[in-house]
Amino acid sequence: MGYRAPMTQDVQDADKPFRPEARAPRGFADKRSHTIAVERRLINTVSAVYEAHGFEALQTPAFEYADALGKFLPDSDRPNVGVFALQDDDDQWMALRYDLTAPLARFAAQNWETLPKPFRRYAFGPVWRNEKPGPGRLREFMQCDADIVGTDRPEADAEIIAMAVTGFKALDIPVRIRINNRKLLNGLLSSLGVTEAPQQLGVLRAIDKMDRFGIEGVRLLLGAGRKDDSGDFTKGAQLPEAAIQPVLDFVSAAHDGATRAEVVARLTQVLAASPEGLAGLEDLTRIDVALNAMGVAEDAAVFDPGVVRGLEYYTGPVFEAELLLETRDEKGNPVAFGSVGGGGRYDDLVARFTGERTPATGFSFGVSRLAAALALVEKDKAAKARGPVVIIAFSDADMGEYFKLAAEIRAAGVPAEVYLGRSGMKAQMKYADRRLSPAAVMLGGDELAAGTVTIKDLDLGRDLASQISDNKAWREGRPGQVTLPRGEAINHLKNIINS
Amino acid sequence: MGYRAPMTQDVQDADKPFRPEARAPRGFADKRSHTIAVERRLINTVSAVYEAHGFEALQTPAFEYADALGKFLPDSDRPNVGVFALQDDDDQWMALRYDLTAPLARFAAQNWETLPKPFRRYAFGPVWRNEKPGPGRLREFMQCDADIVGTDRPEADAEIIAMAVTGFKALDIPVRIRINNRKLLNGLLSSLGVTEAPQQLGVLRAIDKMDRFGIEGVRLLLGAGRKDDSGDFTKGAQLPEAAIQPVLDFVSAAHDGATRAEVVARLTQVLAASPEGLAGLEDLTRIDVALNAMGVAEDAAVFDPGVVRGLEYYTGPVFEAELLLETRDEKGNPVAFGSVGGGGRYDDLVARFTGERTPATGFSFGVSRLAAALALVEKDKAAKARGPVVIIAFSDADMGEYFKLAAEIRAAGVPAEVYLGRSGMKAQMKYADRRLSPAAVMLGGDELAAGTVTIKDLDLGRDLASQISDNKAWREGRPGQVTLPRGEAINHLKNIINS
Repeated sequence: MGYRAPMTQDVQDADKPFRPEARAPRGFADKRSHTIAVERRLINTVSAVYEAHGFEALQTPAFEYADALGKFLPDSDRPNVGVFALQDDDDQWMALRYDLTAPLARFAAQNWETLPKPFRRYAFGPVWRNEKPGPGRLREFMQCDADIVGTDRPEADAEIIAMAVTGFKALDIPVRIRINNRKLLNGLLSSLGVTEAPQQLGVLRAIDKMDRFGIEGVRLLLGAGRKDDSGDFTKGAQLPEAAIQPVLDFVSAAHDGATRAEVVARLTQVLAASPEGLAGLEDLTRIDVALNAMGVAEDAAVFDPGVVRGLEYYTGPVFEAELLLETRDEKGNPVAFGSVGGGGRYDDLVARFTGERTPATGFSFGVSRLAAALALVEKDKAAKARGPVVIIAFSDADMGEYFKLAAEIRAAGVPAEVYLGRSGMKAQMKYADRRLSPAAVMLGGDELAAGTVTIKDLDLGRDLASQISDNKAWREGRPGQVTLPRGEAINHLKNIINS
Repeated sequence: MGYRAPMTQDVQDADKPFRPEARAPRGFADKRSHTIAVERRLINTVSAVYEAHGFEALQTPAFEYADALGKFLPDSDRPNVGVFALQDDDDQWMALRYDLTAPLARFAAQNWETLPKPFRRYAFGPVWRNEKPGPGRLREFMQCDADIVGTDRPEADAEIIAMAVTGFKALDIPVRIRINNRKLLNGLLSSLGVTEAPQQLGVLRAIDKMDRFGIEGVRLLLGAGRKDDSGDFTKGAQLPEAAIQPVLDFVSAAHDGATRAEVVARLTQVLAASPEGLAGLEDLTRIDVALNAMGVAEDAAVFDPGVVRGLEYYTGPVFEAELLLETRDEKGNPVAFGSVGGGGRYDDLVARFTGERTPATGFSFGVSRLAAALALVEKDKAAKARGPVVIIAFSDADMGEYFKLAAEIRAAGVPAEVYLGRSGMKAQMKYADRRLSPAAVMLGGDELAAGTVTIKDLDLGRDLASQISDNKAWREGRPGQVTLPRGEAINHLKNIINS
């Protein structure tokens, strides 16, 4: 690699000190405590659901050999998605993982003989994509996945879906899982004689626009094309008239609150001529039976043939988690958050290494996306980190007393700290305020002599202070502040925190 | 960067399929559930201690700009320590963080105006070092740090030390924190007229060998040099005779169970002529007062002038956590684990960016090293992941029944899964065994008709089976297996798990 220059550069000995600019790299963000708390809650909750379903934890490294990652990007329809790669000392190319599935495939292939099969694992951690960064589009984000490798049973897909439903429910996040099957789309296309890749892609792109343009928009996009309000023309898939109606029947099979069984029944008519399509419907029927057995409600997991998701990657059922919260940005504009998780069946991933087809299915929670969505709807105010109790530092000579009290408060289960800067009273109060402290504790000379402690309720203080316009009244009133025997300090602090 | 070849390579279309070898990159390891459980327990416990002390969580990205990481490796005495670096699309060099301190310095410099000061943050996550991999020497490992930026108070160092002591205690890991002060060593060297860097380094290396070679070995290494048992000669620091005894007095000040105050008193005599040394002792005295106030025992945190730790990096007090467990490798040989954490005061790190000296102090738990140590002493058997209850799959038609029962068991708080492969009874039992399942549950045709369930206690079964030599007896005895009304299944499973 050879790049070592900054590591040996001696900034102190240089004539003019080198001052790098302090900034995070493009497309990478620092996370503060609130965001971390939300992500941690998401991961812990989802992990517990996975463990309840018998999934074992697995952590693979950040790096994989580039040849092991291969071409299996989730969606090669997005050609700009790249990886962060570098060459190791021994000239081999390594790349940071861009998802948690490709490393699982490598791990499963490497350890197949000794693994319990089917192999159920869950994993969470950051993934990295070398994409052009943009607003809300980071190059490092968290995922939390569960996969079952080594089973072709549709019930495995059902279990993955049920876990996603249970996970979102445990998180109290309203989500609908939309389920499709790659075999349905394959069967539809081949029964209509659409066999060329570009035309297939055109049909899929038209189907994908159902939510945006409605049935009439899709009809135009399946045929000659569609002109939007601005006059821009999108060329269509050029299907003949006779082929357009079956596609429209196909995509509209789920669009009026039909049950899963009803959607299957409707699609059975559309796909009657396609063995592959009927096989896909058989999968869905068995998924439905298992979902019902696990108590998954009809509106929590729906069959929707309009879901088009990473089709080159998936080989059977596909799942997409649609967030049902209305999110708005800082200006109050509605924000389409789209998918906050998804997955499906990918039967060819392990075969890349072993040559043997190894059926697998899984689901990935987009942890960072979900956390961002929750921040917008402000659902997680409760998770907002409350700061510690701050003990004011008056005198160097009494630091030992402050630390003793801090240790007592912590022992009672309340976070506490001694102010450790060198600033005066006013700055210390401002510090406590910035830390969102519930209370400041004063142990000055008077208090130490009298065996008392003065406690200022900072929330109450803020409320009361806002009602007092007169500076003198504020000083004399000392809003929210009491002096009491030291033995009563901890109970008083607990009352403040619980109020 | 331009490296995209594997991402566009179409393995399916090639004449001869390309089969990459399934292996993790050199120096990187997959972690299975047991290791993950240990690391998670370490991180959660230590994080709770940090939060109790008022530290807020911060997560910086995996990457930093290379110039922001600069030359601040923890110890430039190890020149082979390198980083994983790559060039971004805009030609800027980025590198993966090699510790959590350098990113903190960048973050603090970037956000200094708006941060509450002193700024207390904790962080955990992987760090990466581009070192030559070896046994037990990985290129990716976990750290968990707490730092206070913006205070020069020795009490801040004391708090950091107290948190380390509390953290290890909460983890039930016997550790001694050894504390030194860079100012003592500086003062000693300058009072002896040792001002040239190579000779200073020689003295420090000699001091560092106290544990290995004892006082006589150090005496030789301070002078002309030392020949070891194999005849190899190590050149000494070439100190004149008159300078050797003060250094020996210095390093031996702590070597007989002296209290912290006693060590300070002894060193005051050795360093009487050095203002810098005496200033360092004043720091230690104030640290001692605060440690006593927080109830940190004398044997949990000791002053030891023999600690030599990353001296180019640290500017004041330094701390090192010494594991007191005797660890042995798989062959039963004792393993010196050395430091499982450490830290100290580094006052110049933020100044690289801002030009203003910003005093800071911190401690880093070596999570991966600790987990490895615990694995060796088998302290964490309790954390060993227990597998889920496995429901045997007899018939495709009854999968719904199996999933219903699995959902009931999970609702009672017991992890459970339906076997999802296509193998027979024997393979399913083997699977349950490999998963370390407490029990297998059978819901065959007979059971379904009778409203019963058959449960096999796998631990008991293993015990009983080992006492039966006759295959027929084993089959008839069905060790640990009972059939009972379905309503009693969950209680029976709970009894098995709690037994």
